[in-house]
Amino acid sequence: MEVDKKEELASDSSDQTVNPWEVSAKEGGKIDYDKLIDQFGCQRLDDSLIDRVQRLTSRQPHVFLRRGVFFAHRDFNEVLDAYERGDKFYLYTGRGPSSEALHLGHLIPFMFTKYLQEAFKVPLVIQLTDDEKCMWKNLSVEESQRLARENAKDIIACGFDVTKTFIFSDFDYVGGAFYKNMVKVAKCVTLNKAMGIFGFSGEDHIGKLSFPPVQAVPSFPSSFPHLFPGKDKLRCLIPCAIDQDPYFRMTRDVAPRLGYSKPALIESSFFPALQGENGKMSASDPNSAIYVTDTAKEIKNKINRYAFSGGQDSIEKHREIGANLEVDIPVKYLSFFLEDDTELEHIKKEYGEGRMLTGEVKKRLTEVLTEMVERHRMARAAVTDEMVDAFMAVRPLPNMFESEKPLDFVGSSLCRYYHCTRSMTRTQRKRVEECLEVGNGCLVATVKYLSNSYN
Amino acid sequence: MEVDKKEELASDSSDQTVNPWEVSAKEGGKIDYDKLIDQFGCQRLDDSLIDRVQRLTSRQPHVFLRRGVFFAHRDFNEVLDAYERGDKFYLYTGRGPSSEALHLGHLIPFMFTKYLQEAFKVPLVIQLTDDEKCMWKNLSVEESQRLARENAKDIIACGFDVTKTFIFSDFDYVGGAFYKNMVKVAKCVTLNKAMGIFGFSGEDHIGKLSFPPVQAVPSFPSSFPHLFPGKDKLRCLIPCAIDQDPYFRMTRDVAPRLGYSKPALIESSFFPALQGENGKMSASDPNSAIYVTDTAKEIKNKINRYAFSGGQDSIEKHREIGANLEVDIPVKYLSFFLEDDTELEHIKKEYGEGRMLTGEVKKRLTEVLTEMVERHRMARAAVTDEMVDAFMAVRPLPNMFESEKPLDFVGSSLCRYYHCTRSMTRTQRKRVEECLEVGNGCLVATVKYLSNSYN
Repeated sequence: MEVDKKEELASDSSDQTVNPWEVSAKEGGKIDYDKLIDQFGCQRLDDSLIDRVQRLTSRQPHVFLRRGVFFAHRDFNEVLDAYERGDKFYLYTGRGPSSEALHLGHLIPFMFTKYLQEAFKVPLVIQLTDDEKCMWKNLSVEESQRLARENAKDIIACGFDVTKTFIFSDFDYVGGAFYKNMVKVAKCVTLNKAMGIFGFSGEDHIGKLSFPPVQAVPSFPSSFPHLFPGKDKLRCLIPCAIDQDPYFRMTRDVAPRLGYSKPALIESSFFPALQGENGKMSASDPNSAIYVTDTAKEIKNKINRYAFSGGQDSIEKHREIGANLEVDIPVKYLSFFLEDDTELEHIKKEYGEGRMLTGEVKKRLTEVLTEMVERHRMARAAVTDEMVDAFMAVRPLPNMFESEKPLDFVGSSLCRYYHCTRSMTRTQRKRVEECLEVGNGCLVATVKYLSNSYN
Repeated sequence: MEVDKKEELASDSSDQTVNPWEVSAKEGGKIDYDKLIDQFGCQRLDDSLIDRVQRLTSRQPHVFLRRGVFFAHRDFNEVLDAYERGDKFYLYTGRGPSSEALHLGHLIPFMFTKYLQEAFKVPLVIQLTDDEKCMWKNLSVEESQRLARENAKDIIACGFDVTKTFIFSDFDYVGGAFYKNMVKVAKCVTLNKAMGIFGFSGEDHIGKLSFPPVQAVPSFPSSFPHLFPGKDKLRCLIPCAIDQDPYFRMTRDVAPRLGYSKPALIESSFFPALQGENGKMSASDPNSAIYVTDTAKEIKNKINRYAFSGGQDSIEKHREIGANLEVDIPVKYLSFFLEDDTELEHIKKEYGEGRMLTGEVKKRLTEVLTEMVERHRMARAAVTDEMVDAFMAVRPLPNMFESEKPLDFVGSSLCRYYHCTRSMTRTQRKRVEECLEVGNGCLVATVKYLSNSYN
């Protein structure tokens, strides 16, 4: 087990800033991920681990693993050791619902988490930090909650298994065992330490100081008594972008003092902006990203007009020296989303050696993204309010470690336990009930359809 | 309306310290309450206000009002103005459950709150800050919750009306609308401000920084959707000791920015230790206080051995110059608990002029306290776990503004709504149900008996 570099600031050295609220490299340079690994004290995800994943899951590793999108980890090897011995784990990821529509970068952790859920046959909790966004973005409580539900639809559209997945909003779910764990965590973190880890200042409001325990405690199974009763030793694996590392460095520091297991992490690099690879995409500039709500025409225009090209200024020069793949955004994007390894290698070779032109690569990227966004749009359109209620119902997941989903049992267990939900209005509850009693087959069928929408 | 002195430290000047965690005067001196009023920016509770209370409630003001135990306020006049126009309010008080048994000083706010509830016929919420004590006293979650329930029994034994009173533990109740208000409050308080108000330092843990909003939000009716739906403008009146003022100074500062009414306060001085009036009583020295669990013999011994006397060293000298009533603890205690104004005046005159001896005053105090503690013991013994569950059930209080308590409706409404409780185990719920169905008359009768235990 590595030693966490606990006192390290959230990589706020002179040349790059990476913390949950800001990711930027020095003057348009690239994020130095090797340096991040060193600063944060996590470990590189090497080929031997990826081979182990392939062996343990009997399937080809996800493209995000094969191509190094998820590149760092903490204790992922221990989780695999335990899995090999027959000990399961659970997955935890989340989203801060600050915007109506998600862009492609937002989908990456969810697409990867969905793969992990299927490959390892494990349960998943998804935290929607509407409280965080209410505090950081100055959204009203109501607006944050509305965005959380809207985002939940996009997340569900990624194809998660309702029998293994619990989605919750902090505003709805904080309380009880979850709140008790928040208090336990908060007791273990001094103000000085929190200011060091997160870079808070005296002018920040105390809500910010109160939040890290909220994001920490889904790492502990005892925060979910309806999911993991008597399973306090169940290990947690967190797939996330590496900017979230400070939260979990804090969590891992605190866990042993509470008698809890440290969560393991598997961490991704950032999906680059269309304009180039100097950070994350910006919600304030809609042309910096492709959104899952963009039309085919918008996607085409954005790629053609804004995607930073590594091609040369003139065709002649391009034919002569080829494209600079290191900075070329169309190739970067294809390496995230073009499934076919052979075709990707072919494009990189032809383009890099000047035989393929930027326009051709952009055309292929437009096809790939248009198809993916169209698939997402269809899946999202099929997600009803009832399905959101079902995913967010506070309920046990009796089949969470099973590979099969017995249809009838799913329905009846949900029917039995939707009573537990504290977050639902009477109307919502009635609609879930109707959905489950009348349209149970339909619900699960839709989920199954969605499950096949992505790899 | 007064201007709150927002930036003032919790009276931490060189000669006295008064904040929620420490009350001490300089070298055994007395707390200077006039100075506190000035520093905190609250107002003195004058005779004209006490006369108004008498007029509005058609009963003699409580001994704690008549004798200046509750001596300061914020906006109490506004609450009375509104009450006169027919607008009701609700009461909010609380306790940090840090010890098994309460001492007499702990009872004071509850005895007074019970009087206010009866006199004004208004509902009451009582917060048990088990989360606070878990964080400050380093108690486990379970131990804090156990103490909260034990303390709830002592509180119930003070005679509160179950049809008008909701007791809650933070560990059980934080969540939902309550948590949303916590986040709203936290957004409005900078770290610098919190450190100024409460004197926190960088070495304090972030749980302490997170707590002030928890104590703040019961001041807002929207934190209790089961009690006050659609009553967002209902005014809150907080009876408490003046050391809690910093919390509510912060709350009053924040309230208008959230569109909420500022809570009004009515604040007491501190009940002196047996050894003399230089602060609050100390839980670490059992001989500094009389506990509600003390036997008659213990009470007698403590008063005789430890109660600081203002009498003179020799009988001759005492007969000559009389007792110094300013420092005499037996007289102070009698002025809290001896109901009869005439007898109290008689004792003060005779003792102050040397005709009565310390022993005689101590004997009378022993009688008064023994009888009171015995009454409390009997009342507490009658408080069952089912009654605690009933007071703590998350439920509407349909008769909270009524003067009568229609027996049947109380029972049926509790029966109907105990389902709402999130904090109860199935066993607890079943016991409340049995208690309400089988022993409803018994329950309410016991509560009525208890109501008559104190003035």
